[in-house]
Amino acid sequence: MKIAFLGLGTMGLPMAANLLKAGYNVQGWNRSAGPAAKLAERGAVNAATAAEAATDADVLISMLADDNATRSTLLEGNVLATLKPGAIHVNMASISVALAVELAQLHQARNVGYLAAPVLGRVNVAEAGQLTILAAGDSALLANVQPLLDVLGQKTWYLGDRPEQASATKLAVNFMIASAIGAMSEAVALVQGYEVDKGEFIDLITSSLFAAPVYKGYGQAIATDTFEPAGFKLALGLKDVRLAQDAAERVNVPLALAGTLRAAHVESLAHDEGHLDWAALSRTAARRAGQI
Amino acid sequence: MKIAFLGLGTMGLPMAANLLKAGYNVQGWNRSAGPAAKLAERGAVNAATAAEAATDADVLISMLADDNATRSTLLEGNVLATLKPGAIHVNMASISVALAVELAQLHQARNVGYLAAPVLGRVNVAEAGQLTILAAGDSALLANVQPLLDVLGQKTWYLGDRPEQASATKLAVNFMIASAIGAMSEAVALVQGYEVDKGEFIDLITSSLFAAPVYKGYGQAIATDTFEPAGFKLALGLKDVRLAQDAAERVNVPLALAGTLRAAHVESLAHDEGHLDWAALSRTAARRAGQI
Amino acid sequence: MKIAFLGLGTMGLPMAANLLKAGYNVQGWNRSAGPAAKLAERGAVNAATAAEAATDADVLISMLADDNATRSTLLEGNVLATLKPGAIHVNMASISVALAVELAQLHQARNVGYLAAPVLGRVNVAEAGQLTILAAGDSALLANVQPLLDVLGQKTWYLGDRPEQASATKLAVNFMIASAIGAMSEAVALVQGYEVDKGEFIDLITSSLFAAPVYKGYGQAIATDTFEPAGFKLALGLKDVRLAQDAAERVNVPLALAGTLRAAHVESLAHDEGHLDWAALSRTAARRAGQI
Amino acid sequence: MKIAFLGLGTMGLPMAANLLKAGYNVQGWNRSAGPAAKLAERGAVNAATAAEAATDADVLISMLADDNATRSTLLEGNVLATLKPGAIHVNMASISVALAVELAQLHQARNVGYLAAPVLGRVNVAEAGQLTILAAGDSALLANVQPLLDVLGQKTWYLGDRPEQASATKLAVNFMIASAIGAMSEAVALVQGYEVDKGEFIDLITSSLFAAPVYKGYGQAIATDTFEPAGFKLALGLKDVRLAQDAAERVNVPLALAGTLRAAHVESLAHDEGHLDWAALSRTAARRAGQI
Repeated sequence: MKIAFLGLGTMGLPMAANLLKAGYNVQGWNRSAGPAAKLAERGAVNAATAAEAATDADVLISMLADDNATRSTLLEGNVLATLKPGAIHVNMASISVALAVELAQLHQARNVGYLAAPVLGRVNVAEAGQLTILAAGDSALLANVQPLLDVLGQKTWYLGDRPEQASATKLAVNFMIASAIGAMSEAVALVQGYEVDKGEFIDLITSSLFAAPVYKGYGQAIATDTFEPAGFKLALGLKDVRLAQDAAERVNVPLALAGTLRAAHVESLAHDEGHLDWAALSRTAARRAGQI
Repeated sequence: MKIAFLGLGTMGLPMAANLLKAGYNVQGWNRSAGPAAKLAERGAVNAATAAEAATDADVLISMLADDNATRSTLLEGNVLATLKPGAIHVNMASISVALAVELAQLHQARNVGYLAAPVLGRVNVAEAGQLTILAAGDSALLANVQPLLDVLGQKTWYLGDRPEQASATKLAVNFMIASAIGAMSEAVALVQGYEVDKGEFIDLITSSLFAAPVYKGYGQAIATDTFEPAGFKLALGLKDVRLAQDAAERVNVPLALAGTLRAAHVESLAHDEGHLDWAALSRTAARRAGQI
Repeated sequence: MKIAFLGLGTMGLPMAANLLKAGYNVQGWNRSAGPAAKLAERGAVNAATAAEAATDADVLISMLADDNATRSTLLEGNVLATLKPGAIHVNMASISVALAVELAQLHQARNVGYLAAPVLGRVNVAEAGQLTILAAGDSALLANVQPLLDVLGQKTWYLGDRPEQASATKLAVNFMIASAIGAMSEAVALVQGYEVDKGEFIDLITSSLFAAPVYKGYGQAIATDTFEPAGFKLALGLKDVRLAQDAAERVNVPLALAGTLRAAHVESLAHDEGHLDWAALSRTAARRAGQI
Repeated sequence: MKIAFLGLGTMGLPMAANLLKAGYNVQGWNRSAGPAAKLAERGAVNAATAAEAATDADVLISMLADDNATRSTLLEGNVLATLKPGAIHVNMASISVALAVELAQLHQARNVGYLAAPVLGRVNVAEAGQLTILAAGDSALLANVQPLLDVLGQKTWYLGDRPEQASATKLAVNFMIASAIGAMSEAVALVQGYEVDKGEFIDLITSSLFAAPVYKGYGQAIATDTFEPAGFKLALGLKDVRLAQDAAERVNVPLALAGTLRAAHVESLAHDEGHLDWAALSRTAARRAGQI
């Protein structure tokens, strides 16, 4: 079985490496050359073009940056046109629901299987093969690639037979992350207004009711004003809040909190903070309160 | 040492009982007779009036329902006027910052110590003596009563020497709970718009990024539409969001999310859901989306 | 007929003067002495205390600053206790619905008539006797004082037989003013982001779809950054947004926009702009966009 | 001089007819045949295709429905490719800033002039040739077509030399309309909570502070619950709020109120009210309050 792996960025590289390590035949490709070279060091045969990687592939895994990168690689880059009938494409990137729907139709028209399988977890989780995988699409196809997903993640959640169900779910999770950071930011501004130490407050909540990874990770960054290097950029957080609104609007679901959060994110960008970690949203709450 | 315990409701009764069990001399009082009788069964001498309980008390602990109950008992009920100079009042209820400030001044004028010590945790946590205690006020006073607090809670966080610092912190936490429920409610509406099973979604988030008590508890209620009996009533949640806004406004801290959340809570009340559990806020998100 | 007029501030003084000019017997009172002296110059007999003014008055008109001033003058200042049975109190100040309800009950218990009659219009409108009067209370009482109101205003709107109906309506209008200023502020920030001249934009809207006093007045201030002297202080605008929320909440009406607007107002206060004209809310929109 | 007029819908037909009446040589085109026939009755020579209309045109005026219609007609329909160098295209439709920027570049590349000139005013205003025109682009080009615009409108506002400045301004105005309707809707819900007649309230505000066309028009519809036929559909209002957010985001301007308003609009769509007049947004405010 030949696996093509497109997109060897921060997340894609360790994922592809894990497949190699598990003994799979992986041909990698990345827009820029550096990451592909790193994969080659681990034994992969790299392709000169994405279409070359797709040639004769049984399974194509893509982990491209966003809608634009996905669209340009798959469509303009002739990847979809190159895949053989019966091949399976597992798209593990987080994309819009609109693109998920469009890709599902295009694959079907070419008799290529299409699964959406975006993930939860950052680089270290990807390296450990412990990602949480949100999968949707034809369940028979999923069964075929489940051994591969088991190499990459600790658990695969099956969300339905339409790929956009996984996209919507991923966006719902990211909307919840934005909400958690936003609420924590405002709560910190409130207690700071009373001269309560913010580190103490973060310790308090993350050792009791909010003892969860998302609060611990972003909370620690907020408590120590550590926003670089960015684990996940605030500007990408804004993009996902926007995509969550768009996804919700397709099915007439109002997201009142998303509207409020989006304005806060845009305000961060207006103050040149889009390149900082998502936790830097706390700076907007502090700025609004005249605390910084 | 004589301890007076005012307010033997759902939370107060097990707390007072734990003090009795630890060997302390506790005189209880409750507005209605039933709970006091239960405490008497466990060995307490109950008082006919709150002022009687306060007579000669070394430490007064109050756990009254809200601002009104606290104000009427302490002031109109002559409790503060009865306490002997040098006594310590530990107020463990969640009250407004405005009342916390006012009480601190009134106690000081009478030479009675005043500590604010609201708690995190529900009945079962109170019964187990495992509450999280948020304390503020004079640190020397706190040292005096720490042995008592150690009977009631697993940990006491010291937030500063002004009692309102604990009130503000408690309100900040409750605002975060409201945000968590609100965001989870909208996220559930979003995935339901795509026919993703909401129980599956709640399982997914609470076993990964949001694996925290607040999401597990309220999430389970949302997933199963179980809003009765109410662990904490939605109407009380609205009251705390409002008090958080008021507290924030005293120190010029804008809470944008609180504004959005407050409107959702009021909408719940407009649909006769204020008596339901706080998790029933999810019904407003579903109703807005035309899902119920 | 003796008229007592309490509160001779910016609005009250010209109103009382207009009654004098119309030939009425007016006894004035103001907390501070200066304004009362000005009224005396126009022929009024001033009272040393509010209660003295109320003695033997047939009609008491009050135009006090806010809830606190109203409460302390009427209740602690013994005005209500002094009014003779059958007298009519016309409260023309903008107060909370809660206080309107309370005052209605207290007056009824003393057999004194009570009408709420808050007004629209600023000082120059008051001077011209052209106020818009929003009246509520017993219609027979209103008929009795209508000749007085006709001196003060160009039109009296009758909103119902419960005084709080006028309070709620006045707060609804002020909430709409806050919305108009808030939306105009954000729209100006948007066009300024595209280097469209804000004066041009304000001219454009106020000479077409938004050709109304509220947009012209506040729009001109926004276009020219003229926020002093304050026609109506931003901090008072915040108070009225809060009172509108409270009024709405008493009858379970969610005001989503009020929540968003309130946060913007608090942010203005956090940047020491509460003493500026309400139009200065535009500075918060510009600040959020990084434009100032 | 030959004028091509693309898009003979509700607005375009009377505009093209006014040009004919003023003696101009107008060749019309519309996607569907009916409106073109009506224009022919008034003396126009209609074109079989948009490209045919564009052939040899000196001035092309387009008034197409939205971004999609504009894009497909101009680009896929070969209109731009057909226009002769030196021709001027006046786009009077309301489109996104993104498309305005893109079209400006495409026209420049082909040496065709491009002006954006969206309008304020409904059908009856268009018929009377009294539109308010918001123009942007090269001022020399504008001078060339000003005689035509003077036939169509009462006043042309010049907003800058980049076409997207007019698009952004039009979207800012529509965002303000959404805010006005939204605030009026919540204010009406508030006073109705106190049993104040909503017709009385609308009369009150529109004869005083809010005596402007936008409040009178939508207010009358709200007061009488008259939402059909739709003067401007609520679903189109949502589209414009979204485009205003997008336009603002391009230049890092947060629109907090737009976020809140957008959620209300989506809620209207979730209740099958998107085809009703924009004023039907009031139903969402009433529904949230449990009033309908």
